[in-house]
Amino acid sequence: MTTADLARAAKAASIPLAAIDTDTKNRALTAIGEALAAHADSILAANRADLARAAAENLAAPLLKRLKFDEAKLQGVIEGIASLARLADPVGEMLGATELDEGLELYRVSCPIGVIGVIFESRPDALVQISTLCLKSGNAVLLKGGSEALETNRALAQVIREASVAAGVPDGWIQILETRADVTEMLKLDDCIDLIVPRGSNEFVRYIMDHSNIAVLGHADGICHVYVDAAADLAMATAVATDSKCQYVAVCNAAETLLVHEAVAADFLPQVAAPLAAQNVELHGCERTCALIDAQPATEEDWQTEYLDYTLAIRVVDDMAAAIDHINQYGSGHTDVIVTGRAEAAETFMNLVDSGNVFWNCSTRFSDGFRYGLGAEVGISTNKIHARGPVGLEGLMIYKWKLKGTGQTVADYADGRRTFTHRPLAGDCRG
Amino acid sequence: MTTADLARAAKAASIPLAAIDTDTKNRALTAIGEALAAHADSILAANRADLARAAAENLAAPLLKRLKFDEAKLQGVIEGIASLARLADPVGEMLGATELDEGLELYRVSCPIGVIGVIFESRPDALVQISTLCLKSGNAVLLKGGSEALETNRALAQVIREASVAAGVPDGWIQILETRADVTEMLKLDDCIDLIVPRGSNEFVRYIMDHSNIAVLGHADGICHVYVDAAADLAMATAVATDSKCQYVAVCNAAETLLVHEAVAADFLPQVAAPLAAQNVELHGCERTCALIDAQPATEEDWQTEYLDYTLAIRVVDDMAAAIDHINQYGSGHTDVIVTGRAEAAETFMNLVDSGNVFWNCSTRFSDGFRYGLGAEVGISTNKIHARGPVGLEGLMIYKWKLKGTGQTVADYADGRRTFTHRPLAGDCRG
Repeated sequence: MTTADLARAAKAASIPLAAIDTDTKNRALTAIGEALAAHADSILAANRADLARAAAENLAAPLLKRLKFDEAKLQGVIEGIASLARLADPVGEMLGATELDEGLELYRVSCPIGVIGVIFESRPDALVQISTLCLKSGNAVLLKGGSEALETNRALAQVIREASVAAGVPDGWIQILETRADVTEMLKLDDCIDLIVPRGSNEFVRYIMDHSNIAVLGHADGICHVYVDAAADLAMATAVATDSKCQYVAVCNAAETLLVHEAVAADFLPQVAAPLAAQNVELHGCERTCALIDAQPATEEDWQTEYLDYTLAIRVVDDMAAAIDHINQYGSGHTDVIVTGRAEAAETFMNLVDSGNVFWNCSTRFSDGFRYGLGAEVGISTNKIHARGPVGLEGLMIYKWKLKGTGQTVADYADGRRTFTHRPLAGDCRG
Repeated sequence: MTTADLARAAKAASIPLAAIDTDTKNRALTAIGEALAAHADSILAANRADLARAAAENLAAPLLKRLKFDEAKLQGVIEGIASLARLADPVGEMLGATELDEGLELYRVSCPIGVIGVIFESRPDALVQISTLCLKSGNAVLLKGGSEALETNRALAQVIREASVAAGVPDGWIQILETRADVTEMLKLDDCIDLIVPRGSNEFVRYIMDHSNIAVLGHADGICHVYVDAAADLAMATAVATDSKCQYVAVCNAAETLLVHEAVAADFLPQVAAPLAAQNVELHGCERTCALIDAQPATEEDWQTEYLDYTLAIRVVDDMAAAIDHINQYGSGHTDVIVTGRAEAAETFMNLVDSGNVFWNCSTRFSDGFRYGLGAEVGISTNKIHARGPVGLEGLMIYKWKLKGTGQTVADYADGRRTFTHRPLAGDCRG
């Protein structure tokens, strides 16, 4: 089957899938969990084959660690499926209800987007998490995992497909793509695929965004900032800046640039330099920074760089307005933090910084679906429409308008024989 | 100034505009209404100049009618602004609130998208409606109106700009583009413009969608269907089908195809043919239709055509499933209607038809922001993400996540020294 065939099959399945009831979906999720446990031997054997191939190809140790799918990881995804089954069904939620006239009622009701294409890294648990999120939200899905995990992904997808279809989910809803050529093909299928979620390197995500007419949900860069205000508690600022930079450097929500109000720079910079030096963080500073602490001179490029490493750019700014300008100019709209004791300044910062996540007195690293309490996460979006920041089930939903009448025609209203009442109906959460 | 300069100015203004308070915005709206009244003479004179030029260029009568902006139209937009000022501010609405831990509170808060590019037809009142919707929602806007309305648009935009800036709105928030080359330029400015709303012909909208990486909100085709079920009240079906086709043929929510269950075709088709013939509707029917009433044979192309005229395609189908398949295959996801006495069939139809607007026992022509009670309308979207169907103020909004802490670091949670509470906070409408 070509990629287009797979996408058409997913599209066909997406129609009945959008309308299956909550019980069927939850029974299917439970069945998937049980089937994964029952097929543990073959899944783990497939993963051992992937690991052996990867080791023979000299894959780096951190990548091997991500690729590994053992009994504990399997148990983790099975528990994740059980908690997903317990969540409320996001389909069919009443988002608004208006009486347009007597016997003419308008409802805005949540529904699945349709067909989602997801391209993800070499963590086999991602396949289980993403596919079950799609099932719970009533979306069909095309999945392209890392090629290193090919055997594991095949084994997992087969178990998920068989268990879900046996439980009444329309066959075709889950499709696996296996090559880069398949992905290239997928980007053209805007008649079948409604949304693409690419997870991976900046260059990869940007390539996807630039080469498809399909809507893309995700982020390329994660250039996150910590701004230390004149009114900051400097011990708190040191802890927040150090955690933001060092707690896990290889991720999109790690801080890349530290901005410091000039009034506290002389006190703060030597104070924060100590824990950063203890973790071997390389500092690239502006001129004023280099005059206060030991740092390499920063260039314009530093402000635009996502290091994903033990490197930090530091700039002393005249005031908060300059910090905000810097962030809006060089940032990526991901996550930016102010450390300050002034609530009013914090509110201004959070309103004027045009990022999906704006924080006051805490680490950039909190920007994450699990930490936000969203359950599993589809990804983090720096889009300006649809969904922003960490995206959970809600990002896989849209709505449709259902209008229920009793024979009404527009001519009656256009000609003044009837008038609209536009009365909110009970069930409209927003009143 | 180049288009890029205008877009950068709009982007710069969008930052403070996103944060100005409700009173300032509403005062500005009131000031705009007053200024439009005060400058009525020069605005109407500009419109007379446009009309004279258009008449000299032999513009068709319906277009001249759309272009005309007289005292009554001016009064209409001024009243529209007054009612917009009375609407709740869509910015800063609390969409969710969660305690992540003691002293660490997460809020999801509505905010403007940023910079919107709108391309619209030759109705000068559209300029006023769109720009004031953007102002109310805190968005900067680049406006490209029909070239026939150039003088009127210049006059209106100048009044709106001066009045709003005098009332405290950041200068630069409203920008006018005047040529097609400006639009071509705008499509490339994905660093400054967050969303494009094109209104106009199918070909034009499709061109925009195919030539920009910027998100587009709108619709190309409007191929709307009326399906008459076996259990339909045939008198009601006749009224709904006739209104859907004839009440205003030149618009996207007019019906283009009538689908009829075979069990009622012999009764229904002659019945509906009479009022359609009275309005000179040309019928293109499938084989079974042509055996029952006088119609031209329909071709495959008929099912894919948005006539926007007194022409209707008719197809007899075996059952509701065949009707749903037809709509999902040939429709444009705009508006589709079932006429039936069976509530269960209606619900199935509305769940399985993958369109933004799915109606039961009423005309396709109700698919409209004003009729839905949304107030003024940005446009109608057949997108599968962000906003669907008639789009009002809400479609110009997105949200940001604000996290307010007291010095928390992620290391404390990762190392098990602290755990998340994930407790819903009061103020979360969704509980």
